[in-house]
Amino acid sequence: MDYQISEQMQQKLQRIDDFLKTHIIPLEPLLLTGQWPTLMENLNGLRKKVQEMGLWAANLPKDVGGSYTTLVDLALIAEVLGQSPLGHYVFGCQAPDAGNAELLHLHGTEEQIEHWLKPLAAGKIRSCFAMTEPHTAGSNPTLLDATAVLDGDEWVINGRKWFTTSAEGASFTVAMVVTDPDAEKHSRASMILVPLDNPGYRLIRNIPVMGHKGYGYFSHGEVEFTDCRVPASNLLGKRGQGFALAQERLGPGRIQHCMRWLGIGKRSLNEMCRYVKSRKISSTQTLADQQLMQAMIADSTAEIAAARALVLETAWTVENLGFKAARENISLIKFYTANILQRVVDRALQSHGALGMTDDTILAHFYREERAARIYDGPDEVHRLSVARKILKQTV
Amino acid sequence: MDYQISEQMQQKLQRIDDFLKTHIIPLEPLLLTGQWPTLMENLNGLRKKVQEMGLWAANLPKDVGGSYTTLVDLALIAEVLGQSPLGHYVFGCQAPDAGNAELLHLHGTEEQIEHWLKPLAAGKIRSCFAMTEPHTAGSNPTLLDATAVLDGDEWVINGRKWFTTSAEGASFTVAMVVTDPDAEKHSRASMILVPLDNPGYRLIRNIPVMGHKGYGYFSHGEVEFTDCRVPASNLLGKRGQGFALAQERLGPGRIQHCMRWLGIGKRSLNEMCRYVKSRKISSTQTLADQQLMQAMIADSTAEIAAARALVLETAWTVENLGFKAARENISLIKFYTANILQRVVDRALQSHGALGMTDDTILAHFYREERAARIYDGPDEVHRLSVARKILKQTV
Amino acid sequence: MDYQISEQMQQKLQRIDDFLKTHIIPLEPLLLTGQWPTLMENLNGLRKKVQEMGLWAANLPKDVGGSYTTLVDLALIAEVLGQSPLGHYVFGCQAPDAGNAELLHLHGTEEQIEHWLKPLAAGKIRSCFAMTEPHTAGSNPTLLDATAVLDGDEWVINGRKWFTTSAEGASFTVAMVVTDPDAEKHSRASMILVPLDNPGYRLIRNIPVMGHKGYGYFSHGEVEFTDCRVPASNLLGKRGQGFALAQERLGPGRIQHCMRWLGIGKRSLNEMCRYVKSRKISSTQTLADQQLMQAMIADSTAEIAAARALVLETAWTVENLGFKAARENISLIKFYTANILQRVVDRALQSHGALGMTDDTILAHFYREERAARIYDGPDEVHRLSVARKILKQTV
Amino acid sequence: MDYQISEQMQQKLQRIDDFLKTHIIPLEPLLLTGQWPTLMENLNGLRKKVQEMGLWAANLPKDVGGSYTTLVDLALIAEVLGQSPLGHYVFGCQAPDAGNAELLHLHGTEEQIEHWLKPLAAGKIRSCFAMTEPHTAGSNPTLLDATAVLDGDEWVINGRKWFTTSAEGASFTVAMVVTDPDAEKHSRASMILVPLDNPGYRLIRNIPVMGHKGYGYFSHGEVEFTDCRVPASNLLGKRGQGFALAQERLGPGRIQHCMRWLGIGKRSLNEMCRYVKSRKISSTQTLADQQLMQAMIADSTAEIAAARALVLETAWTVENLGFKAARENISLIKFYTANILQRVVDRALQSHGALGMTDDTILAHFYREERAARIYDGPDEVHRLSVARKILKQTV
Repeated sequence: MDYQISEQMQQKLQRIDDFLKTHIIPLEPLLLTGQWPTLMENLNGLRKKVQEMGLWAANLPKDVGGSYTTLVDLALIAEVLGQSPLGHYVFGCQAPDAGNAELLHLHGTEEQIEHWLKPLAAGKIRSCFAMTEPHTAGSNPTLLDATAVLDGDEWVINGRKWFTTSAEGASFTVAMVVTDPDAEKHSRASMILVPLDNPGYRLIRNIPVMGHKGYGYFSHGEVEFTDCRVPASNLLGKRGQGFALAQERLGPGRIQHCMRWLGIGKRSLNEMCRYVKSRKISSTQTLADQQLMQAMIADSTAEIAAARALVLETAWTVENLGFKAARENISLIKFYTANILQRVVDRALQSHGALGMTDDTILAHFYREERAARIYDGPDEVHRLSVARKILKQTV
Repeated sequence: MDYQISEQMQQKLQRIDDFLKTHIIPLEPLLLTGQWPTLMENLNGLRKKVQEMGLWAANLPKDVGGSYTTLVDLALIAEVLGQSPLGHYVFGCQAPDAGNAELLHLHGTEEQIEHWLKPLAAGKIRSCFAMTEPHTAGSNPTLLDATAVLDGDEWVINGRKWFTTSAEGASFTVAMVVTDPDAEKHSRASMILVPLDNPGYRLIRNIPVMGHKGYGYFSHGEVEFTDCRVPASNLLGKRGQGFALAQERLGPGRIQHCMRWLGIGKRSLNEMCRYVKSRKISSTQTLADQQLMQAMIADSTAEIAAARALVLETAWTVENLGFKAARENISLIKFYTANILQRVVDRALQSHGALGMTDDTILAHFYREERAARIYDGPDEVHRLSVARKILKQTV
Repeated sequence: MDYQISEQMQQKLQRIDDFLKTHIIPLEPLLLTGQWPTLMENLNGLRKKVQEMGLWAANLPKDVGGSYTTLVDLALIAEVLGQSPLGHYVFGCQAPDAGNAELLHLHGTEEQIEHWLKPLAAGKIRSCFAMTEPHTAGSNPTLLDATAVLDGDEWVINGRKWFTTSAEGASFTVAMVVTDPDAEKHSRASMILVPLDNPGYRLIRNIPVMGHKGYGYFSHGEVEFTDCRVPASNLLGKRGQGFALAQERLGPGRIQHCMRWLGIGKRSLNEMCRYVKSRKISSTQTLADQQLMQAMIADSTAEIAAARALVLETAWTVENLGFKAARENISLIKFYTANILQRVVDRALQSHGALGMTDDTILAHFYREERAARIYDGPDEVHRLSVARKILKQTV
Repeated sequence: MDYQISEQMQQKLQRIDDFLKTHIIPLEPLLLTGQWPTLMENLNGLRKKVQEMGLWAANLPKDVGGSYTTLVDLALIAEVLGQSPLGHYVFGCQAPDAGNAELLHLHGTEEQIEHWLKPLAAGKIRSCFAMTEPHTAGSNPTLLDATAVLDGDEWVINGRKWFTTSAEGASFTVAMVVTDPDAEKHSRASMILVPLDNPGYRLIRNIPVMGHKGYGYFSHGEVEFTDCRVPASNLLGKRGQGFALAQERLGPGRIQHCMRWLGIGKRSLNEMCRYVKSRKISSTQTLADQQLMQAMIADSTAEIAAARALVLETAWTVENLGFKAARENISLIKFYTANILQRVVDRALQSHGALGMTDDTILAHFYREERAARIYDGPDEVHRLSVARKILKQTV
């Protein structure tokens, strides 16, 4: 056994961390106060630097312009980048583009790769992923409502989706639609690529999330397809493979989510430690001297350390022993880490008192935005039941 | 013993609840989407109706235009009104005006009552309360920084305050300032009334709280006093009595806070129950059939019921046996109820899935805004230690 | 409304508390070290004193030798007595005799009252209650296994029961058996009185519970009925009424359980406070100066206070507005209070360090014995689901 | 990086697991019902087999008769053995002998090794460790009370100790005593070897722990040294090194404790899964179909997995990068794992209903005995504060 991160990788992580602290974190106030155009201009400038540094798109292999090495390395990078809500975007591995690019890389036709993946991977265009529906429960695939019917050599798509993250300004979406309503439960849906200048597509609204409609990349759309026609060749992967691809998209993505959350946790804990050391509560003491603060620091440290050890173990297992060997863990880490994230951020906010409620620190942003971690990609409840059923099945 | 609410009071609560559900809750989307001017116009219209119905200012006695009866009744009203973030404002008993009016009623000079209290109680002007300071810990009175020095027959005030709720648009503030720096720890500060058109006063900014700067009544100011001069007669109560008055202001106010939080809890639980009954997860089942949803409903019901029983008992005790007899409970209910509130809202949000993150329901608003409950008026940590020390002192 | 306990009742509670502390608590070491015969001798001596003081059997009305006044008063007495595991026995209102006596009082025939209730109420004999079965889930009445068949004028009982508390040394048991297997789900069972010198009855063993087989009153039996014949007139209440009577038995019993648990909580918290004040951790400090101890004390105080307020409210409601008005609360208080009990005892034990693990204090006894509170009379899970379903049914 | 356990080690673990399940677990009822002599006879028989299998004393190197390979391997073995409270004893690596043997191996003189270590390592004698004192707080070394004074070539020991585990029947103890009262705080104490047939030594009592005085190896003694004289050469390590050695003893020991606890957790979870699958709650369903059971299983699985990943990472780090590199984790894993243990056992017990309270399963034993995990070797509170202070110190 060997738990050590290679010297070379440690240096790479340090470079990324330095870049993040020097260039990215100082831009956060633009995010927190909604100065979108200025923010985007700055971020796009930083992206060029990252490309020059050879650190671009750690989730994609070199042949499509990325810098992928291993899943464990990608996880470690996600942790560092997660410390800022702007990190992944600057380094070209942001959701939902990352997942879309990975799908295209594995399942795209040559034409699709040329037309969609290359500009996407290069950061020239953005994309979105239209799966969640407002009126159907995502946990039950048989309820999926949006449809695509083959009419000659065109798909005709109808349906409504929401939480189509980053729809505003995106060039195309991957749409999850029912193509084979009478097929077996998990083979009813397919993924279809839809360019968003299509007249049959409409961005109804940016959904107000936690008080904000966001903007561009930082938004969540509610979108509608009305007799939306695209060429038959826009099918991504095979017909009926929609859920299989969605699972595949979520697998490694989940590890990156978890590590990103742990990055947020680490940042929050660090903000907490720095604040309590600086906050005077008497002529001789700071908040850091208070046991109740110390207890919160210890609990956060322990929870982050344990979740991190498990997520890294899972990443290694997926990469080296295959997805099946890590099946339970892949479910476990989702709800376990998301709950730890919520607690760690909550404690950090609490330690800041009234300041924690303001946007003068990043914590209130984490508190409200990352509440979604326990919901998207399967709410806690779905994962807890799923893990238990796997365990019970194995029990003899 | 008699735990029954009188028939008459039950009817009054029903009237208030009907009004809230018919007239106030439908205005919430204006709040959630920041349509402030339209919102205020509507709210001010409703205030007139409430005055006509004789339900105005349940926190103030009739002689100053209110409809106060007992502390328990006021608590019960606060619970009903708390179901909407707009309830208290419409019924003329909103913080921070309510607390200021109560102070003026008990400690104001005739002139102060005439000049400040009457228009405030009538809802013609608004006020704010400048106590919290950005750079000093509120839990330690000796750290209070802002000062007022008597220069002839004028106080000269200097200092910076924040979380001066509703400062924007207010006519005056009650400022908590050190007037006697060398006095005993709890006798250093006084309260002084400051009209906000004073050139020595400045509203620096509306603090961005959880992503929002708010507006007018719905904002929190950071304010500055620079050689701000007011007449010596603007002293509220006696010199050196600042902390005593602050405590007095907080006492009954705390019961109303707790009951308001329980109203929020009740509303959230109800939203949850309605949603899970309506949300289909298969052809035959809704979310309401899921044990994990049921468990969350049961836990929320129990926590609300227990906290409510304790807060009402405390209200009755304060009113009938005096503040001392309820001393521990007054501290207890603050942190206990605030934590229950957070859990109840969190569960309701979780049950709504992605919808819970949006502003299409009130839950995300409660989630982010009411996080402050565990912080303002003394963070959890301060109250927990304070309760324990009282208990330990009594232990023989 | 009036939350005040009458002067007279306060004095009564004080008398009981004094007696408990002076005479009963000093006997606890005999319990903790298993010196059963000496213990029983002492306890029986104290029972006589209690009878002379007129405080005997607070759960039973005067006409059968008790001192019942109101359900709220009974609850308050249960709280005081609960402070020691010996309290209820000495005061003649111990489970399972108390519940049996209440049933006999309400549903017994004249003959049954004369023969069973009178000596039971007087403390001359003991009884037990044979309901729980080792191999069937108590939460589902249709699974009940034990049967009684009418053969001429005799019931012939067959079946196995366990957790027949206090079976060893009891004179009779109330047996819950299926008499009408084909009746509607809740009308299949009846209660039958069985004298335990019956040759068809056998005490198989005292079940080892948390490391102990106990002794006599302080034991839990596994018992067997094999063609056990008793006269038809031993039917308690009506045929098919078994579950209805069981519910009736549990209703007020549950309030007493909850108050007894709160008495245990109060005792544990008090032991904790006294210990931390006495335990030196340096030349100038005791454990009581540690914030982490204080936080535990505050949390325990708050939880006990809230649960107590709710249980008393429930008791008052049952007595004055009827069982239906308190239906949800009756379920709520069971699981809510039992969980608080576990946490409060756990914190008290933890505060004692290694000493808490020993039987040199009462805490380890509470820790292991009272773990059952979350299980008997319906485990947490059953009550949580039951409460939620009631709430959901009411939701419109 | 490489997280894989070698094929060879996996086979070894499987052999140990098979032995445990075939030979050791069937003996547990003897423990649970206190049939000590029969139990010991059986256990001692199994020990011979283990020695023959070459699996004896995995904590000790081959030169003193053990089978030590690496700390990670030892950890993995501790996890398997931990599944039964009898596992470590049978495999010759049971506390407190294991820690004593490790100390003697590292710091013993040749004579000490010959005289004490060899028979101890071979399982021919037992030992104990006298450190904890009833009247002083172990968290503060300056409070240690017991003393040893050099009188000629003899130490004269006076003092009282308790929780001297396995004192009954032990041949010698390692006594922690103040030899240099005026030295710097952490250099006041030394360790001295005391043969227990010494007239100055007395086993006052077996402490009743959770209702039991235990027996022999399975007991905790309160012991007294009264002018107890031993040769000066019985000093273990250097004079004044007592606390340093104690820390050294605890370091790797802590990893074994944590892995043993995770073994208990795994066993408890497995008992739970098996039981809920077998327990019918209706004609078509078992407890395993209940979401509330499933949620408990998922939470336990996640907590065990995360803690295990962290403990193994810590073991690897200690062994490969040294103790300092793992310093925080060594504190973290103690309280983190102990708390997980408590929750996992509690859920398993709860799932068994009334059966869980009995000694018909192992769970009630784990519930009461392992409550100590949060106390011995530093209570939660001490470790939480210690971790936080390390983290705060590093914060810049």
